[in-house]
Amino acid sequence: MEGASNLSFYLNKPNDVEFKDRPVPTLQSPHEVLVAINYTGICGSDVHYWVHGAIGHFVVKEPMVLGHESAGTVIEVGSEVTTLQKGDRVALEPGYPCRRCQDCLGGHYNLCPEMRFAATPPYHGTLTGFWTAPADFCYKLPDNVSLQEGALIEPLAVGVHIVKQARVSPGQSVVVMGAGPVGLLCAAVARAFGATKVVQVDIVQAKLDFAKDFAATHTYLSQRVSAEENARNIIEQAGLGAGADVVIDASGAEPSIQASLHVVRVGGTYVQGGMGKNDITFPIMALCIKEVTARGSFRYGSGDYKLAIELVAAGKIDVKKLVNGVVPFKDAEQAFLKVKEGQVIKILIAGPNEKVESTFNTSVDAAKLKEAEADSQEGGAACC
Amino acid sequence: MEGASNLSFYLNKPNDVEFKDRPVPTLQSPHEVLVAINYTGICGSDVHYWVHGAIGHFVVKEPMVLGHESAGTVIEVGSEVTTLQKGDRVALEPGYPCRRCQDCLGGHYNLCPEMRFAATPPYHGTLTGFWTAPADFCYKLPDNVSLQEGALIEPLAVGVHIVKQARVSPGQSVVVMGAGPVGLLCAAVARAFGATKVVQVDIVQAKLDFAKDFAATHTYLSQRVSAEENARNIIEQAGLGAGADVVIDASGAEPSIQASLHVVRVGGTYVQGGMGKNDITFPIMALCIKEVTARGSFRYGSGDYKLAIELVAAGKIDVKKLVNGVVPFKDAEQAFLKVKEGQVIKILIAGPNEKVESTFNTSVDAAKLKEAEADSQEGGAACC
Amino acid sequence: MEGASNLSFYLNKPNDVEFKDRPVPTLQSPHEVLVAINYTGICGSDVHYWVHGAIGHFVVKEPMVLGHESAGTVIEVGSEVTTLQKGDRVALEPGYPCRRCQDCLGGHYNLCPEMRFAATPPYHGTLTGFWTAPADFCYKLPDNVSLQEGALIEPLAVGVHIVKQARVSPGQSVVVMGAGPVGLLCAAVARAFGATKVVQVDIVQAKLDFAKDFAATHTYLSQRVSAEENARNIIEQAGLGAGADVVIDASGAEPSIQASLHVVRVGGTYVQGGMGKNDITFPIMALCIKEVTARGSFRYGSGDYKLAIELVAAGKIDVKKLVNGVVPFKDAEQAFLKVKEGQVIKILIAGPNEKVESTFNTSVDAAKLKEAEADSQEGGAACC
Amino acid sequence: MEGASNLSFYLNKPNDVEFKDRPVPTLQSPHEVLVAINYTGICGSDVHYWVHGAIGHFVVKEPMVLGHESAGTVIEVGSEVTTLQKGDRVALEPGYPCRRCQDCLGGHYNLCPEMRFAATPPYHGTLTGFWTAPADFCYKLPDNVSLQEGALIEPLAVGVHIVKQARVSPGQSVVVMGAGPVGLLCAAVARAFGATKVVQVDIVQAKLDFAKDFAATHTYLSQRVSAEENARNIIEQAGLGAGADVVIDASGAEPSIQASLHVVRVGGTYVQGGMGKNDITFPIMALCIKEVTARGSFRYGSGDYKLAIELVAAGKIDVKKLVNGVVPFKDAEQAFLKVKEGQVIKILIAGPNEKVESTFNTSVDAAKLKEAEADSQEGGAACC
Repeated sequence: MEGASNLSFYLNKPNDVEFKDRPVPTLQSPHEVLVAINYTGICGSDVHYWVHGAIGHFVVKEPMVLGHESAGTVIEVGSEVTTLQKGDRVALEPGYPCRRCQDCLGGHYNLCPEMRFAATPPYHGTLTGFWTAPADFCYKLPDNVSLQEGALIEPLAVGVHIVKQARVSPGQSVVVMGAGPVGLLCAAVARAFGATKVVQVDIVQAKLDFAKDFAATHTYLSQRVSAEENARNIIEQAGLGAGADVVIDASGAEPSIQASLHVVRVGGTYVQGGMGKNDITFPIMALCIKEVTARGSFRYGSGDYKLAIELVAAGKIDVKKLVNGVVPFKDAEQAFLKVKEGQVIKILIAGPNEKVESTFNTSVDAAKLKEAEADSQEGGAACC
Repeated sequence: MEGASNLSFYLNKPNDVEFKDRPVPTLQSPHEVLVAINYTGICGSDVHYWVHGAIGHFVVKEPMVLGHESAGTVIEVGSEVTTLQKGDRVALEPGYPCRRCQDCLGGHYNLCPEMRFAATPPYHGTLTGFWTAPADFCYKLPDNVSLQEGALIEPLAVGVHIVKQARVSPGQSVVVMGAGPVGLLCAAVARAFGATKVVQVDIVQAKLDFAKDFAATHTYLSQRVSAEENARNIIEQAGLGAGADVVIDASGAEPSIQASLHVVRVGGTYVQGGMGKNDITFPIMALCIKEVTARGSFRYGSGDYKLAIELVAAGKIDVKKLVNGVVPFKDAEQAFLKVKEGQVIKILIAGPNEKVESTFNTSVDAAKLKEAEADSQEGGAACC
Repeated sequence: MEGASNLSFYLNKPNDVEFKDRPVPTLQSPHEVLVAINYTGICGSDVHYWVHGAIGHFVVKEPMVLGHESAGTVIEVGSEVTTLQKGDRVALEPGYPCRRCQDCLGGHYNLCPEMRFAATPPYHGTLTGFWTAPADFCYKLPDNVSLQEGALIEPLAVGVHIVKQARVSPGQSVVVMGAGPVGLLCAAVARAFGATKVVQVDIVQAKLDFAKDFAATHTYLSQRVSAEENARNIIEQAGLGAGADVVIDASGAEPSIQASLHVVRVGGTYVQGGMGKNDITFPIMALCIKEVTARGSFRYGSGDYKLAIELVAAGKIDVKKLVNGVVPFKDAEQAFLKVKEGQVIKILIAGPNEKVESTFNTSVDAAKLKEAEADSQEGGAACC
Repeated sequence: MEGASNLSFYLNKPNDVEFKDRPVPTLQSPHEVLVAINYTGICGSDVHYWVHGAIGHFVVKEPMVLGHESAGTVIEVGSEVTTLQKGDRVALEPGYPCRRCQDCLGGHYNLCPEMRFAATPPYHGTLTGFWTAPADFCYKLPDNVSLQEGALIEPLAVGVHIVKQARVSPGQSVVVMGAGPVGLLCAAVARAFGATKVVQVDIVQAKLDFAKDFAATHTYLSQRVSAEENARNIIEQAGLGAGADVVIDASGAEPSIQASLHVVRVGGTYVQGGMGKNDITFPIMALCIKEVTARGSFRYGSGDYKLAIELVAAGKIDVKKLVNGVVPFKDAEQAFLKVKEGQVIKILIAGPNEKVESTFNTSVDAAKLKEAEADSQEGGAACC
C-alpha cells in the first residue's frame, strides 16, 4: 500500500470532473475491511449525475467521487472480521444500511431510510484507490470468477432482485421490456430461474440481436403502435397464449410500461425495475380486472449478491459478454462519454493502481448500437 | 311452488325495464339446487347497466334479468347434493366458473375466462322468483344470520377478497379510499383482520360520518389539493408515521389512486378494488422506488363467501347497518332510482313471492347523502 | 378400434393376477376423451398392492386393474372438448377429483377427499386397452416428447410436486434421501429449479453411481452410524456449511428422515415425500429450535403435469435414462417381478394393442442393483 | 441513579442462588440506552436453569444472573439514539443478534448463531438493577400500558411469533395444546388474529377453567387414550369438521404432539412451540399424506414485540389476568419456588430499587393449580 495512489474521480458539478488524490481511508470499525479497487463499471446513474448533477431529490452539492460497481482486493481486515482474509478478491456491495430500523431488522435493508449508498449524494463512490466497507458487504469471489466479472456483480444483483420480486418460477414465460445492461441481465436471470420463454423487447434492433445471443429465447422490436397492439404482437409472435406469466419493465419508458400491463396474463406478475418519469398514463383497470400483482424493485437486498456470484460461478450467466472493454483509470471521463453515447454495453475502469492497456472488444457493432440514443433511464434501472 | 310467480325484472335497453314472468327453471345437473329468492341488493354495476346498457365490453344485447346480490331458500335439491337440504336458507354466489381451466384448477376460479356471472351479459340475474345453482355456490346461513343479511354477503365477499388481496395482518394501518358500500365493508373487514388503524377517505362528509360509526378509526375528507398533499395530510392526521401499511382503493377515482401510492409506506401494499377509468395518470416511480406491492382485486373466490358469512355470524361485522330499507319486488325500478340518486347505501328488493311492506330506515340522513353525486364507479367496486 | 382388445391386467388378490378382457369404456360426459393406452410404467404402489393386497386402509376387496403411469393416444373426444383432438398423444393424470369441495375450489385438488385414483381401490387402473378421462387431465405431448417418455410424466410429476412443496429456489443446496425413481427425479427437478448443490443419499452404491450420472452433484452412501453422524458427514463432504437449505426425503426410511432433520440448516425446509412406517422416532426439537419448515407431499396437483412435460420437452430432464426396457402386455407379471426384485429402475409395459419386442437396456448393472432389497417404501414415494 | 442498588439475583449452581451487588453497567455504544429494571417475570426456562443448571447444551458454568422478562425505565440514552428519551417506560427484548449474518440480514435475527440472550449462558439476565441494551431492542410502552404489563410482553411475543409461524388467518379454527402461560397467550393471540374457534387442551381441569375465561372458545381435558382418540374427541366436541386449520403445540409433551398431527386437517398447519424431549414417536405419515405444513417456532423476531405491545394497548389481550402477584426483589427465590410448584401462572419480581408490597391475587384457585405438577417443558415454550 505504500506509495499506492488513492487518486479519485470526482464530479464537481454537471460535466465538470476532476482527478484528485486523497488520504487512504482507515477502518472505522473492527467489522470493516480495507479494499484496493481493481475494476469499476459505469452505471446509467453515474452518467446521469455526471450530466445533470442530480437524480430526483438527490442533488450533488459538494464534489462527489463517482462509481459504485466495483470489485477489489482485501488488503486489511478489522479485528472482528472472520469471513475474509488479506488477499481475498471481493465484489463490493456499495450500499450500507443502518441495521437498526424496521426495514433492516425485517430483512429489507435495501429500503432502509438511512442507507448510505456509494455515489449517491452526499456519499462518495468507488472510483478511487481504496475503499473501506463492512466485511459482510464484501463478497469473496470464487477462484473461477475474475475481478472483471466481479465488477459486473452489482448490475447482476439488480437483475437478481428484480427477478426475485417477480417470483419467476420454472416453466414460466417472461417478457423483459428494454435490452440495456439491466434488461439483458434480467433475461439471463429469468432463464437461470427456469423460465422457458424469455422475450426481450426494445426499440433498437442491434440490442435485440445481442439479446438473442445472450439470453432471450424471443425478441420483439417495438412498433410505433398502441400499447395494446404491441402487446398483442408480442403474445402472438412468442406464442404466449393468454399472456405472459411475468413481465419485467427494465426500460422505465412509458409505452413499455403500458404494454407490460397488456401483455401480462390474468393473474400474472409485473415488476417495475426501470427508472423513468415519475408519473405516466397507466392502464389501471387492466391491473384491477386481471388481478395482476405489480411490484417495484429497488436496488438489491438480502442474498442477492450471493446468488449473483453463484450464477456466474456456476456458469449460468456469462457476464463477460457484456464487457466491451477496459480502460485505465486516467481515461475514466472518456469511458463515461462512451457510455453516454450508447457505444457500449459495459465498460470497466481499472483502479488507479491497476496497470492495464485500454482494450475494446469489437464483437458488438458499435455503429448499430449508436442508433440507440442512450435514453437516460436505460441502464440505470432500479439501482439508484 | 305451485302458483308461485317467477316474475323477473328485465332490462330491455338503457333505462327501459320490464317485469315479465318466465318458467320456473329446472335442475340441469344432480349437483344443483333450486332456490326461491327472498332478497336482492342492488350493486353499482346493476345501476350502470340500467343507465348505460353496458360495462366495458359487456354489452346488453338481449333483454337481461338484473340483480346478483341475493339470498334465498332451497326448495329442491339434486340427487348428488349432500351439503344442503330443502328449507335451508342460503346466500347465493352468483358466478359459476368452468371448473376445468388452469385458473379454476389452480384455485383462482374468479379469473376463469368462461365464468357465467349473473346479470353480466349474456347471463340473466337474480331479480327473479327462482334460481338454480350448483350446491357448492349456495352457502347455508347459520341460524343467527337473517336472509336480509344473507343478501349482503355478496358485497361483503367483495370486501373480503380485497382485504385478502391486501394481506392485511394484525396491527397494521389501512387506508381505504372511498366510503361507498364496498369501501365501508373493506374497512370493516380490515378491522376484523386485526388492523388497528383504519382510515376512511371520501369527498362527502356525510359518508365519512357514517363510516366513523361503522368501522373506521379515522376519517379524512379529501381536499382539492395535490395527491401528495392529501397523502401527507392523511399520514399526519392519522399518525401513520412513514405511511400506511396497506392502502385499498375502493373508489376507482383517479385522485384517490394517485394519493394511494403516496400514502402507502415503503414496502407497503396497495390494492385496486374500485372500478373506474381504464387509463389514469399514475405515480409509477413511487411504486418502483418504494417497492410497493400492488394487486388488483376482481370479484371473490375460494373461501370468500364462507369467511364473509362467518364474520357476520361471529358478530364482527354488522351488515344490517348498511340497509336503508326493503321494498317489494314491484318497486324494483324505484329502488334502482334511489341507488342511482345516492339516497341510500343499500336497499333490498324482496323476491316476487315475498310479502313485505316498503320500509325505510331513516338513521342515515338522506339529505346529506344526496350531496354525493353517486359517481358511477363507486359501489361497483370490483364486482363486475 | 374395431377388433381392438381391451385386455386388462387384474389383481384378484395378493400375488394372484389375471388377464381379462372387458368392454371398451364409453364417454360418460361431453368433457371426456377416450384414450388408447400405449405405455404404462410400474410404480412401487402397484407392486405393493400386488404383494400385500393393500396400502394402509386402501384394501383390494374386488379384482382391480393395476397401473396408473400411462401415456396413450386420443381416439375419441367428447362434444365439449376443445383442447384435444383425435390422434393427440397424451400423458394421463390418473386421479380425478370432485371439483366441488373446498380443497378442489381452493387449488389443492390432490387433497380432495373424494378423489378417484387409478389403481387405488375401488378404482381400476390403466393396465388396460382403453381409458376414459376428463380432457383436462390428459396432457398433450409436444412433438419432441415420445409416448414412452409420456409414461414417465407421472413419476416426474410426483417429483415436481415434492420440489414445489420444498420451494426450491436458485442457488440453494438440496439433499435428497433415497435414490429410487422418485428420489432420482426429485434431484433432477431440484437442479431444474436452480439448485446448485444436489446431494443424493442412499444405502446402495450402485444407485448412487447412477444418481451421479443422472442429476446429483454429490452423493453420500449412508453409514450404519447415528443420524447426527450421517448428517455431519453429508454436510462436511458436500460442503454445506451450516446445513442444507432443503432436504427431501424420498425414501420413507426412518434413519433417513431422522438425518433429514439434522442435515437441514436453521430456517431451512424439509419435505416428506416417501411413504413408510406410520410412526417413527423423530427429532422434534431439531424442528422446533431450528425453525424448520416441514411439509408433506402427496401425489401432484395444479400445474405439476404441465411443468413435468415442459421440463422434458425443454431437455432439462432426460427421463428416458430411467427406462431399463419395454415388455409386451402379456409379460406384465414378469415386469412386476423385476421391479419387485429391484433389478430395474423403470420398466414400461406396452398396451395390449401395441406391438413391441421385449427390450432391456443393460446400461445399468443389474447385479449391483440386485443388492438393493427393494424395500417397499422406495419408489412408491408420495403417489399412493 | 446515585445510591441506587444494582443488586442482582445470581444462580451459582443448581438450587444455589445468591444476591450480589455489582457495578452499574455503562453504555458500550452510542446506540445503547441504560434502563432501570422495574418488573421481571419468571419463565419456565429460568426455573429450569435454577433446578438443573442447564438446558440442552447451554450449561451454567459461571454464576449467572437470572431473568429475561422485564420492563424498565430509560435513565440514559446514547448519543446516536433518536427513538427514546430519558423517562420512557420500555419493554426489553432480551436477545441481541449480531446484525451481520445471513439470518440477521435476511430478517430472521432470532435464528442468529451469535445471539446473546439474557440468562442463557454465558450471558447474564435482567434480575438486576440496571441494564444496557441497544435502543432498537427497547420498546416504548404507550401510556395505557403499565410497566407490569410491560413485563408480560416477552411471553406475549413468544405467542405472537408462534401464531405468526402458524399463519393464523380470520375464520380459522385453532387447537392449542397446553394451557401454561405461553399456551394461554397463543390462544389469545390466535383470537386477535381472527380465529373463530380456539380449543385449549390440557391435562389439568383448573387450567382449562382459566383458559375458558381468558381466550379459548372451547376446552378439552386430555384423556389417557390414544392420540388418535383424543384427536377424534377434540374434533367432535369442538365441531371441527374435517379437522383443525391450525394446531399449536405449546406443551412440548409427546402425547400432545402426536394428537396435533391427528387433529390437524388435510392441508392444515401445525407449529411446534413448546420445548420437551429431543426425540419422540411421531406420526410422520399423517404429515406426509395430509400435506401438513409444520414449522418450529423459536423465541421472537422482527415485529413481534411491536405487535405484542399493540395487542395489549388496543385492549385485545389482557395480560394482567395472568399475573397472580408481585413480590419485592428480595423474595425472588420464593417466587421461583411458587412457579416451580405450579402455584401461579405468572408472578412478577420488582426490581431492586422498586418499593412494592408482596401481593397475591387469589382469583385463581391455587389449590387446584397445584395439581398440575409443573412439568418442566410447560411455560418454557419456545423461548430458550
